[in-house]
Amino acid sequence: MRVALLLAYDGGAYHGWQVQPGTRTIQGLLVTALGRLVGEGVTLTGASRTDAGVHALGQVATFDTPRSLAPATIQAALNANLPTDIRVLAAASVRPGLDARRSARLKRYGYLIHAGPVPLPFLRAHVWHVGRPLDAAAMGAAFRVIRGTHDFSAFCAAGGRGRPPTCTLFAVRLVRRGSLLGLVVSADAFLHHMVRNLVGTAVEVGLGRRPSASLGDVLATRDRRQAGPTAPAHGLHLLSVRYPEPLFPGGGRRVPGGLRRSVPGP
Amino acid sequence: MRVALLLAYDGGAYHGWQVQPGTRTIQGLLVTALGRLVGEGVTLTGASRTDAGVHALGQVATFDTPRSLAPATIQAALNANLPTDIRVLAAASVRPGLDARRSARLKRYGYLIHAGPVPLPFLRAHVWHVGRPLDAAAMGAAFRVIRGTHDFSAFCAAGGRGRPPTCTLFAVRLVRRGSLLGLVVSADAFLHHMVRNLVGTAVEVGLGRRPSASLGDVLATRDRRQAGPTAPAHGLHLLSVRYPEPLFPGGGRRVPGGLRRSVPGP
Repeated sequence: MRVALLLAYDGGAYHGWQVQPGTRTIQGLLVTALGRLVGEGVTLTGASRTDAGVHALGQVATFDTPRSLAPATIQAALNANLPTDIRVLAAASVRPGLDARRSARLKRYGYLIHAGPVPLPFLRAHVWHVGRPLDAAAMGAAFRVIRGTHDFSAFCAAGGRGRPPTCTLFAVRLVRRGSLLGLVVSADAFLHHMVRNLVGTAVEVGLGRRPSASLGDVLATRDRRQAGPTAPAHGLHLLSVRYPEPLFPGGGRRVPGGLRRSVPGP
Repeated sequence: MRVALLLAYDGGAYHGWQVQPGTRTIQGLLVTALGRLVGEGVTLTGASRTDAGVHALGQVATFDTPRSLAPATIQAALNANLPTDIRVLAAASVRPGLDARRSARLKRYGYLIHAGPVPLPFLRAHVWHVGRPLDAAAMGAAFRVIRGTHDFSAFCAAGGRGRPPTCTLFAVRLVRRGSLLGLVVSADAFLHHMVRNLVGTAVEVGLGRRPSASLGDVLATRDRRQAGPTAPAHGLHLLSVRYPEPLFPGGGRRVPGGLRRSVPGP
Protein backbone atom coordinates (compact mmCIF):
# COMPACT_ATOMS: atom_id res chain seq x y z
CA MET A 1 0.00 0.00 0.00
CA ARG A 2 1.04 3.59 -0.53
CA VAL A 3 1.17 5.82 2.53
CA ALA A 4 1.31 9.62 2.77
CA LEU A 5 2.79 11.36 5.80
CA LEU A 6 2.08 14.93 6.91
CA LEU A 7 5.24 16.24 8.59
CA ALA A 8 6.34 19.19 10.69
CA TYR A 9 9.95 19.84 11.55
CA ASP A 10 12.28 22.40 12.98
CA GLY A 11 15.02 22.41 10.37
CA GLY A 12 17.62 24.08 12.60
CA ALA A 13 19.50 20.91 13.49
CA TYR A 14 19.40 19.30 10.04
CA HIS A 15 21.22 19.40 6.73
CA GLY A 16 17.91 19.73 4.94
CA TRP A 17 15.42 17.16 3.69
CA GLN A 18 17.41 15.02 1.32
CA VAL A 19 19.51 12.01 2.34
CA GLN A 20 23.22 12.74 2.09
CA PRO A 21 25.85 10.30 3.31
CA GLY A 22 27.43 11.32 6.61
CA THR A 23 24.94 14.08 7.44
CA ARG A 24 21.81 14.25 9.54
CA THR A 25 18.81 14.89 7.29
CA ILE A 26 15.05 14.73 7.78
CA GLN A 27 14.58 12.16 5.02
CA GLY A 28 17.48 10.12 6.40
CA LEU A 29 15.98 9.92 9.89
CA LEU A 30 12.54 9.08 8.51
CA VAL A 31 13.92 6.31 6.29
CA THR A 32 15.79 4.86 9.27
CA ALA A 33 12.64 4.97 11.42
CA LEU A 34 10.60 3.44 8.58
CA GLY A 35 13.22 0.71 8.22
CA ARG A 36 12.49 -0.48 11.77
CA LEU A 37 8.78 -0.47 11.07
CA VAL A 38 8.29 -1.80 7.53
CA GLY A 39 11.73 -3.08 6.58
CA GLU A 40 14.89 -1.69 5.01
CA GLY A 41 15.14 0.02 1.63
CA VAL A 42 12.02 2.18 1.73
CA THR A 43 11.93 4.91 -0.93
CA LEU A 44 10.48 8.03 0.65
CA THR A 45 9.54 10.91 -1.65
CA GLY A 46 9.10 14.39 -0.21
CA ALA A 47 6.96 17.10 -1.82
CA SER A 48 9.77 19.59 -1.32
CA ARG A 49 13.49 19.02 -0.85
CA THR A 50 13.83 21.73 1.78
CA ASP A 51 17.36 23.10 2.19
CA ALA A 52 19.50 22.95 5.33
CA GLY A 53 17.90 25.02 8.08
CA VAL A 54 14.51 25.39 6.38
CA HIS A 55 11.49 24.47 8.53
CA ALA A 56 8.23 22.74 7.64
CA LEU A 57 4.76 22.85 9.13
CA GLY A 58 3.12 20.78 6.41
CA GLN A 59 5.63 18.79 4.36
CA VAL A 60 4.14 15.72 2.65
CA ALA A 61 6.01 12.51 1.87
CA THR A 62 4.92 9.19 0.32
CA PHE A 63 6.28 5.64 0.42
CA ASP A 64 5.17 2.11 -0.44
CA THR A 65 5.09 -0.83 1.91
CA PRO A 66 4.00 -4.45 1.44
CA ARG A 67 2.92 -4.49 5.10
CA SER A 68 -0.69 -3.65 5.80
CA LEU A 69 -0.49 -1.33 8.79
CA ALA A 70 -3.08 1.09 10.09
CA PRO A 71 -1.95 4.65 9.28
CA ALA A 72 -2.39 5.60 12.95
CA THR A 73 0.01 2.79 13.89
CA ILE A 74 2.59 4.07 11.39
CA GLN A 75 2.23 7.60 12.77
CA ALA A 76 2.62 6.50 16.39
CA ALA A 77 5.56 4.20 15.65
CA LEU A 78 7.43 6.87 13.68
CA ASN A 79 6.85 9.54 16.35
CA ALA A 80 8.17 7.13 18.97
CA ASN A 81 11.39 6.71 16.94
CA LEU A 82 11.99 10.28 15.77
CA PRO A 83 13.53 13.22 17.64
CA THR A 84 10.93 15.68 18.98
CA ASP A 85 11.87 18.31 16.38
CA ILE A 86 10.41 16.06 13.67
CA ARG A 87 6.75 15.04 14.04
CA VAL A 88 4.37 13.04 11.91
CA LEU A 89 1.16 15.07 12.19
CA ALA A 90 -0.92 12.59 10.20
CA ALA A 91 -0.61 9.44 8.11
CA ALA A 92 -3.04 8.14 5.51
CA SER A 93 -3.39 5.40 2.94
CA VAL A 94 -3.51 6.95 -0.55
CA ARG A 95 -4.00 5.76 -4.14
CA PRO A 96 -0.95 4.04 -5.69
CA GLY A 97 -0.42 6.80 -8.29
CA LEU A 98 -0.17 9.58 -5.72
CA ASP A 99 3.41 10.85 -5.60
CA ALA A 100 4.22 13.48 -2.95
CA ARG A 101 6.38 15.44 -5.37
CA ARG A 102 4.93 14.90 -8.85
CA SER A 103 1.27 14.99 -7.81
CA ALA A 104 1.59 18.26 -5.86
CA ARG A 105 -0.53 21.04 -7.39
CA LEU A 106 0.32 23.91 -5.05
CA LYS A 107 2.91 24.62 -2.38
CA ARG A 108 2.75 27.37 0.17
CA TYR A 109 5.78 28.89 1.86
CA GLY A 110 6.05 31.46 4.63
CA TYR A 111 9.03 33.71 5.33
CA LEU A 112 9.41 35.71 8.55
CA ILE A 113 11.42 38.94 8.86
CA HIS A 114 12.01 41.04 11.98
CA ALA A 115 12.85 44.69 11.37
CA GLY A 116 13.10 45.73 15.06
CA PRO A 117 16.45 46.69 16.60
CA VAL A 118 16.92 43.73 18.99
CA PRO A 119 16.58 40.08 17.90
CA LEU A 120 13.92 38.31 19.97
CA PRO A 121 14.97 35.18 21.89
CA PHE A 122 11.82 33.26 20.96
CA LEU A 123 11.99 33.95 17.27
CA ARG A 124 15.72 33.84 16.66
CA ALA A 125 15.61 30.39 15.06
CA HIS A 126 12.65 31.17 12.78
CA VAL A 127 12.95 34.79 11.74
CA TRP A 128 15.50 36.72 9.68
CA HIS A 129 16.52 39.59 11.93
CA VAL A 130 17.18 42.42 9.47
CA GLY A 131 17.36 44.88 12.38
CA ARG A 132 16.52 48.01 10.39
CA PRO A 133 13.22 49.70 9.52
CA LEU A 134 11.65 48.29 6.37
CA ASP A 135 9.14 49.97 4.08
CA ALA A 136 6.52 47.23 4.17
CA ALA A 137 4.23 49.03 1.71
CA ALA A 138 7.02 49.19 -0.90
CA MET A 139 7.81 45.52 -0.32
CA GLY A 140 4.15 44.57 -0.67
CA ALA A 141 3.96 46.50 -3.94
CA ALA A 142 7.13 44.78 -5.16
CA PHE A 143 5.67 41.34 -4.51
CA ARG A 144 2.40 42.20 -6.26
CA VAL A 145 4.32 42.73 -9.52
CA ILE A 146 5.47 39.12 -9.67
CA ARG A 147 2.06 37.46 -9.32
CA GLY A 148 1.03 35.21 -12.18
CA THR A 149 2.97 33.04 -14.64
CA HIS A 150 6.58 34.06 -15.31
CA ASP A 151 10.03 32.73 -16.07
CA PHE A 152 11.65 33.00 -12.63
CA SER A 153 15.24 32.25 -13.74
CA ALA A 154 16.44 35.53 -12.22
CA PHE A 155 15.44 34.22 -8.77
CA CYS A 156 16.79 30.70 -9.21
CA ALA A 157 20.07 29.60 -7.60
CA ALA A 158 22.94 29.28 -10.07
CA GLY A 159 23.02 25.62 -11.09
CA GLY A 160 19.35 25.24 -10.08
CA ARG A 161 17.57 21.95 -10.20
CA GLY A 162 17.00 21.57 -13.91
CA ARG A 163 13.26 22.01 -14.00
CA PRO A 164 11.47 24.41 -16.38
CA PRO A 165 11.92 27.96 -15.06
CA THR A 166 8.28 28.95 -15.52
CA CYS A 167 6.13 28.97 -12.39
CA THR A 168 2.71 30.37 -11.57
CA LEU A 169 2.46 32.39 -8.36
CA PHE A 170 -1.17 32.11 -7.28
CA ALA A 171 -0.90 34.37 -4.26
CA VAL A 172 1.69 36.58 -2.60
CA ARG A 173 0.74 38.23 0.67
CA LEU A 174 2.86 40.34 2.99
CA VAL A 175 1.48 40.75 6.51
CA ARG A 176 2.90 43.29 8.94
CA ARG A 177 2.52 43.14 12.73
CA GLY A 178 4.59 45.81 14.38
CA SER A 179 8.19 45.23 13.37
CA LEU A 180 7.49 41.69 12.22
CA LEU A 181 6.82 40.94 8.55
CA GLY A 182 5.45 37.66 7.23
CA LEU A 183 5.42 36.75 3.56
CA VAL A 184 3.12 33.95 2.39
CA VAL A 185 3.54 32.80 -1.19
CA SER A 186 1.83 29.95 -3.03
CA ALA A 187 2.74 28.60 -6.46
CA ASP A 188 2.44 25.49 -8.58
CA ALA A 189 6.22 25.04 -8.28
CA PHE A 190 9.28 26.82 -6.90
CA LEU A 191 12.81 26.97 -8.30
CA HIS A 192 15.81 26.37 -6.06
CA HIS A 193 16.23 29.27 -3.57
CA MET A 194 13.36 31.11 -5.29
CA VAL A 195 11.52 32.31 -2.16
CA ARG A 196 14.77 33.25 -0.41
CA ASN A 197 15.99 35.19 -3.47
CA LEU A 198 12.65 36.98 -3.79
CA VAL A 199 12.83 37.89 -0.09
CA GLY A 200 16.45 39.03 -0.31
CA THR A 201 15.57 41.30 -3.24
CA ALA A 202 12.37 42.60 -1.58
CA VAL A 203 14.33 43.49 1.56
CA GLU A 204 16.56 45.70 -0.59
CA VAL A 205 13.34 47.37 -1.75
CA GLY A 206 12.25 47.71 1.90
CA LEU A 207 15.59 49.32 2.78
CA GLY A 208 15.16 51.85 -0.04
CA ARG A 209 18.03 50.47 -2.12
CA ARG A 210 15.79 49.43 -5.02
CA PRO A 211 12.48 50.78 -6.35
CA SER A 212 9.29 48.73 -5.88
CA ALA A 213 9.10 47.97 -9.58
CA SER A 214 12.52 46.35 -9.31
CA LEU A 215 11.24 42.79 -8.82
CA GLY A 216 9.43 42.93 -12.15
CA ASP A 217 12.48 44.44 -13.89
CA VAL A 218 14.78 41.79 -12.43
CA LEU A 219 12.31 39.07 -13.45
CA ALA A 220 12.43 40.29 -17.06
CA THR A 221 16.23 39.98 -17.21
CA ARG A 222 16.16 36.24 -16.30
CA ASP A 223 19.59 36.97 -14.85
CA ARG A 224 20.33 35.81 -11.30
CA ARG A 225 23.00 38.51 -10.93
CA GLN A 226 20.34 41.22 -11.14
CA ALA A 227 18.50 39.95 -8.06
CA GLY A 228 19.45 40.60 -4.43
CA PRO A 229 21.17 38.24 -1.99
CA THR A 230 19.66 34.96 -0.85
CA ALA A 231 17.79 35.47 2.43
CA PRO A 232 18.84 33.11 5.27
CA ALA A 233 17.31 29.63 5.37
CA HIS A 234 16.03 29.81 8.96
CA GLY A 235 13.29 32.35 8.10
CA LEU A 236 11.71 29.98 5.55
CA HIS A 237 8.84 27.63 6.40
CA LEU A 238 7.13 25.15 4.08
CA LEU A 239 3.53 25.67 5.19
CA SER A 240 1.46 23.27 3.12
CA VAL A 241 1.20 21.24 -0.06
CA ARG A 242 -2.03 20.72 -1.95
CA TYR A 243 -2.99 17.72 -4.11
CA PRO A 244 -5.88 17.05 -6.51
CA GLU A 245 -7.67 15.32 -3.62
CA PRO A 246 -7.40 15.82 0.15
CA LEU A 247 -4.93 13.27 1.52
CA PHE A 248 -5.56 13.36 5.24
CA PRO A 249 -8.78 13.11 7.24
CA GLY A 250 -9.85 16.65 8.08
CA GLY A 251 -8.12 17.93 4.94
CA GLY A 252 -4.69 17.58 6.52
CA ARG A 253 -5.18 20.79 8.44
CA ARG A 254 -3.82 19.23 11.59
CA VAL A 255 -1.61 22.16 12.44
CA PRO A 256 -3.77 24.37 14.66
CA GLY A 257 -4.84 27.69 13.19
CA GLY A 258 -3.44 29.05 16.43
CA LEU A 259 0.04 28.97 14.93
CA ARG A 260 -1.11 31.99 13.02
CA ARG A 261 -1.79 33.91 16.22
CA SER A 262 -0.08 31.88 18.85
CA VAL A 263 1.95 33.77 21.40
CA PRO A 264 0.21 36.62 23.20
CA GLY A 265 2.20 39.85 23.13
CA PRO A 266 2.98 41.99 26.15
CA MET B 1 21.98 56.77 38.43
CA ARG B 2 19.25 54.15 38.48
CA VAL B 3 18.71 52.17 35.31
CA ALA B 4 15.77 50.00 34.27
CA LEU B 5 16.16 47.17 31.76
CA LEU B 6 13.39 45.60 29.67
CA LEU B 7 14.31 41.96 29.15
CA ALA B 8 13.19 39.01 27.03
CA TYR B 9 14.52 35.52 27.55
CA ASP B 10 13.95 31.94 26.62
CA GLY B 11 14.04 30.28 30.03
CA GLY B 12 14.65 26.77 28.69
CA ALA B 13 18.38 26.70 29.38
CA TYR B 14 18.29 28.42 32.77
CA HIS B 15 17.64 27.65 36.42
CA GLY B 16 15.28 30.59 36.63
CA TRP B 17 15.84 34.25 37.32
CA GLN B 18 17.47 34.31 40.72
CA VAL B 19 21.21 33.96 41.33
CA GLN B 20 22.06 30.60 42.87
CA PRO B 21 25.63 29.47 43.39
CA GLY B 22 26.77 26.88 40.87
CA THR B 23 23.82 27.25 38.51
CA ARG B 24 23.21 29.22 35.34
CA THR B 25 20.55 31.87 36.00
CA ILE B 26 19.31 34.92 34.11
CA GLN B 27 20.10 37.29 36.97
CA GLY B 28 23.52 35.69 37.36
CA LEU B 29 24.45 36.22 33.71
CA LEU B 30 23.15 39.79 33.78
CA VAL B 31 25.11 40.64 36.93
CA THR B 32 28.26 39.19 35.35
CA ALA B 33 27.73 41.21 32.17
CA LEU B 34 27.01 44.34 34.24
CA GLY B 35 30.18 43.70 36.22
CA ARG B 36 32.25 44.14 33.08
CA LEU B 37 30.43 47.33 32.21
CA VAL B 38 29.89 49.23 35.45
CA GLY B 39 32.00 47.30 37.96
CA GLU B 40 31.57 44.35 40.30
CA GLY B 41 28.91 43.99 42.98
CA VAL B 42 25.88 45.41 41.17
CA THR B 43 22.56 44.66 42.87
CA LEU B 44 20.04 43.82 40.17
CA THR B 45 16.37 43.60 41.18
CA GLY B 46 13.93 41.79 38.90
CA ALA B 47 10.17 42.47 38.88
CA SER B 48 9.51 38.75 38.97
CA ARG B 49 11.72 35.88 40.16
CA THR B 50 10.69 33.58 37.33
CA ASP B 51 11.20 29.87 38.05
CA ALA B 52 13.46 27.48 36.16
CA GLY B 53 12.21 27.07 32.60
CA VAL B 54 9.80 30.03 32.67
CA HIS B 55 10.15 32.50 29.78
CA ALA B 56 9.86 36.28 29.68
CA LEU B 57 8.91 38.72 26.94
CA GLY B 58 8.85 41.79 29.19
CA GLN B 59 10.70 41.24 32.47
CA VAL B 60 11.91 44.48 34.10
CA ALA B 61 15.01 44.83 36.28
CA THR B 62 16.64 47.82 37.98
CA PHE B 63 20.14 48.57 39.25
CA ASP B 64 22.23 51.53 40.40
CA THR B 65 25.53 52.62 38.95
CA PRO B 66 27.84 55.52 39.75
CA ARG B 67 28.88 55.60 36.09
CA SER B 68 26.97 57.95 33.85
CA LEU B 69 26.34 55.87 30.74
CA ALA B 70 23.82 56.43 28.00
CA PRO B 71 21.05 53.79 28.34
CA ALA B 72 21.55 52.82 24.68
CA THR B 73 25.23 52.12 25.46
CA ILE B 74 24.26 49.91 28.40
CA GLN B 75 21.78 48.04 26.24
CA ALA B 76 24.28 47.46 23.42
CA ALA B 77 27.09 46.43 25.78
CA LEU B 78 24.90 43.95 27.64
CA ASN B 79 23.54 42.42 24.45
CA ALA B 80 27.10 41.99 23.21
CA ASN B 81 27.98 40.06 26.37
CA LEU B 82 24.86 37.94 26.83
CA PRO B 83 23.84 34.70 25.10
CA THR B 84 21.28 35.22 22.32
CA ASP B 85 18.48 33.63 24.38
CA ILE B 86 18.62 36.65 26.73
CA ARG B 87 18.10 40.10 25.17
CA VAL B 88 17.89 43.60 26.58
CA LEU B 89 14.99 45.08 24.58
CA ALA B 90 15.37 48.54 26.09
CA ALA B 91 17.24 50.44 28.81
CA ALA B 92 16.25 53.71 30.46
CA SER B 93 17.34 56.02 33.23
CA VAL B 94 14.61 56.10 35.92
CA ARG B 95 13.94 57.98 39.20
CA PRO B 96 16.00 56.72 42.18
CA GLY B 97 12.93 55.43 44.05
CA LEU B 98 11.79 53.16 41.24
CA ASP B 99 12.30 49.53 42.25
CA ALA B 100 11.54 46.88 39.62
CA ARG B 101 9.86 44.63 42.17
CA ARG B 102 8.32 46.88 44.81
CA SER B 103 7.14 49.60 42.42
CA ALA B 104 5.37 47.17 40.06
CA ARG B 105 1.60 47.77 39.93
CA LEU B 106 0.55 45.03 37.53
CA LYS B 107 2.12 41.94 36.01
CA ARG B 108 0.82 40.02 33.06
CA TYR B 109 1.52 36.34 32.41
CA GLY B 110 0.62 34.13 29.46
CA TYR B 111 0.30 30.35 29.51
CA LEU B 112 0.12 28.25 26.35
CA ILE B 113 -1.56 24.84 26.12
CA HIS B 114 -1.81 22.53 23.11
CA ALA B 115 -4.69 20.05 23.14
CA GLY B 116 -3.96 18.47 19.72
CA PRO B 117 -2.73 14.88 19.46
CA VAL B 118 0.83 15.51 18.22
CA PRO B 119 3.25 17.96 19.90
CA LEU B 120 4.41 20.59 17.41
CA PRO B 121 8.16 20.94 16.85
CA PHE B 122 8.06 24.74 16.85
CA LEU B 123 6.10 25.07 20.05
CA ARG B 124 7.50 22.24 22.10
CA ALA B 125 9.65 24.51 24.26
CA HIS B 126 6.87 27.04 24.93
CA VAL B 127 3.61 25.12 25.13
CA TRP B 128 2.29 22.49 27.52
CA HIS B 129 1.25 19.62 25.28
CA VAL B 130 -1.78 18.15 27.07
CA GLY B 131 -2.55 16.04 24.00
CA ARG B 132 -6.25 15.51 24.70
CA PRO B 133 -9.35 17.53 23.75
CA LEU B 134 -10.10 20.28 26.27
CA ASP B 135 -13.45 21.96 26.92
CA ALA B 136 -12.26 25.53 26.44
CA ALA B 137 -15.68 27.01 27.30
CA ALA B 138 -15.68 25.25 30.67
CA MET B 139 -12.11 26.40 31.33
CA GLY B 140 -12.99 29.99 30.40
CA ALA B 141 -15.95 29.86 32.79
CA ALA B 142 -13.72 28.45 35.54
CA PHE B 143 -11.25 31.31 35.17
CA ARG B 144 -13.99 33.95 35.23
CA VAL B 145 -14.94 32.84 38.77
CA ILE B 146 -11.57 33.84 40.19
CA ARG B 147 -11.49 37.42 38.91
CA GLY B 148 -11.21 40.10 41.56
CA THR B 149 -9.61 40.21 45.00
CA HIS B 150 -9.21 36.89 46.81
CA ASP B 151 -6.97 34.94 49.16
CA PHE B 152 -5.15 32.69 46.68
CA SER B 153 -3.50 30.40 49.28
CA ALA B 154 -5.07 27.34 47.63
CA PHE B 155 -3.05 28.06 44.48
CA CYS B 156 0.22 28.92 46.22
CA ALA B 157 3.10 26.45 46.32
CA ALA B 158 3.59 24.83 49.75
CA GLY B 159 6.21 26.92 51.53
CA GLY B 160 5.41 29.90 49.27
CA ARG B 161 7.31 33.12 49.45
CA GLY B 162 5.87 34.63 52.60
CA ARG B 163 3.94 37.49 51.09
CA PRO B 164 0.29 38.24 51.93
CA PRO B 165 -1.90 35.69 50.12
CA THR B 166 -4.40 38.24 48.84
CA CYS B 167 -4.07 39.29 45.21
CA THR B 168 -6.32 41.15 42.79
CA LEU B 169 -6.81 39.55 39.39
CA PHE B 170 -7.65 42.41 37.05
CA ALA B 171 -8.20 40.31 33.95
CA VAL B 172 -8.24 36.66 32.97
CA ARG B 173 -8.69 35.80 29.33
CA LEU B 174 -8.61 32.43 27.62
CA VAL B 175 -8.12 32.54 23.85
CA ARG B 176 -8.66 29.48 21.66
CA ARG B 177 -7.18 29.01 18.19
CA GLY B 178 -7.86 25.53 16.93
CA SER B 179 -6.28 23.11 19.38
CA LEU B 180 -4.11 25.82 20.95
CA LEU B 181 -5.24 27.61 24.12
CA GLY B 182 -3.65 30.76 25.49
CA LEU B 183 -4.38 32.11 28.95
CA VAL B 184 -3.52 35.73 29.71
CA VAL B 185 -3.83 36.82 33.33
CA SER B 186 -2.95 40.13 34.95
CA ALA B 187 -2.82 40.90 38.66
CA ASP B 188 -1.24 43.26 41.17
CA ALA B 189 0.80 40.34 42.48
CA PHE B 190 1.18 36.58 42.08
CA LEU B 191 1.96 33.94 44.69
CA HIS B 192 4.60 31.29 44.02
CA HIS B 193 3.38 28.85 41.30
CA MET B 194 0.02 30.61 41.26
CA VAL B 195 -0.48 30.77 37.49
CA ARG B 196 0.80 27.22 37.01
CA ASN B 197 -1.49 25.89 39.76
CA LEU B 198 -4.47 27.75 38.30
CA VAL B 199 -3.68 26.28 34.87
CA GLY B 200 -3.19 22.76 36.26
CA THR B 201 -6.58 22.96 37.97
CA ALA B 202 -8.31 24.51 34.94
CA VAL B 203 -6.98 21.73 32.69
CA GLU B 204 -8.71 19.22 35.00
CA VAL B 205 -11.88 21.23 34.35
CA GLY B 206 -11.16 21.10 30.61
CA LEU B 207 -10.73 17.32 30.77
CA GLY B 208 -14.11 16.97 32.53
CA ARG B 209 -12.62 15.84 35.83
CA ARG B 210 -13.86 18.89 37.77
CA PRO B 211 -16.87 21.17 37.34
CA SER B 212 -16.34 24.75 36.12
CA ALA B 213 -17.26 26.16 39.51
CA SER B 214 -14.40 24.17 41.00
CA LEU B 215 -11.82 26.97 40.87
CA GLY B 216 -14.03 29.14 43.09
CA ASP B 217 -14.68 26.26 45.49
CA VAL B 218 -10.97 25.44 45.71
CA LEU B 219 -10.18 29.13 46.27
CA ALA B 220 -12.57 29.21 49.25
CA THR B 221 -10.80 26.30 50.95
CA ARG B 222 -7.41 28.14 50.97
CA ASP B 223 -5.98 24.60 50.89
CA ARG B 224 -3.32 23.80 48.28
CA ARG B 225 -4.25 20.12 48.40
CA GLN B 226 -7.68 20.92 46.90
CA ALA B 227 -6.17 22.39 43.73
CA GLY B 228 -4.86 20.43 40.73
CA PRO B 229 -1.25 19.71 39.80
CA THR B 230 1.27 22.43 38.95
CA ALA B 231 1.37 22.93 35.17
CA PRO B 232 4.86 22.67 33.62
CA ALA B 233 7.12 25.73 33.70
CA HIS B 234 7.86 25.86 29.97
CA GLY B 235 4.31 26.97 29.05
CA LEU B 236 4.56 30.08 31.24
CA HIS B 237 5.62 33.49 29.90
CA LEU B 238 6.01 36.72 31.86
CA LEU B 239 4.52 39.12 29.32
CA SER B 240 4.81 42.56 30.88
CA VAL B 241 5.09 44.59 34.07
CA ARG B 242 3.40 47.94 34.58
CA TYR B 243 4.60 50.80 36.81
CA PRO B 244 2.98 54.06 37.95
CA GLU B 245 4.80 55.79 35.07
CA PRO B 246 6.00 54.44 31.70
CA LEU B 247 9.67 53.44 32.07
CA PHE B 248 10.81 53.08 28.49
CA PRO B 249 10.49 55.37 25.50
CA GLY B 250 7.49 54.18 23.50
CA GLY B 251 5.92 52.80 26.68
CA GLY B 252 8.26 49.80 26.72
CA ARG B 253 6.19 48.07 24.08
CA ARG B 254 9.28 47.05 22.17
CA VAL B 255 8.15 43.49 21.61
CA PRO B 256 6.31 43.57 18.29
CA GLY B 257 2.59 43.00 18.41
CA GLY B 258 3.33 40.42 15.76
CA LEU B 259 4.24 37.96 18.50
CA ARG B 260 0.54 37.73 19.05
CA ARG B 261 -0.01 36.54 15.51
CA SER B 262 3.41 35.58 14.34
CA VAL B 263 3.72 32.34 12.40
CA PRO B 264 1.37 31.91 9.43
CA GLY B 265 -0.49 28.60 9.52
CA PRO B 266 -0.70 26.14 6.65
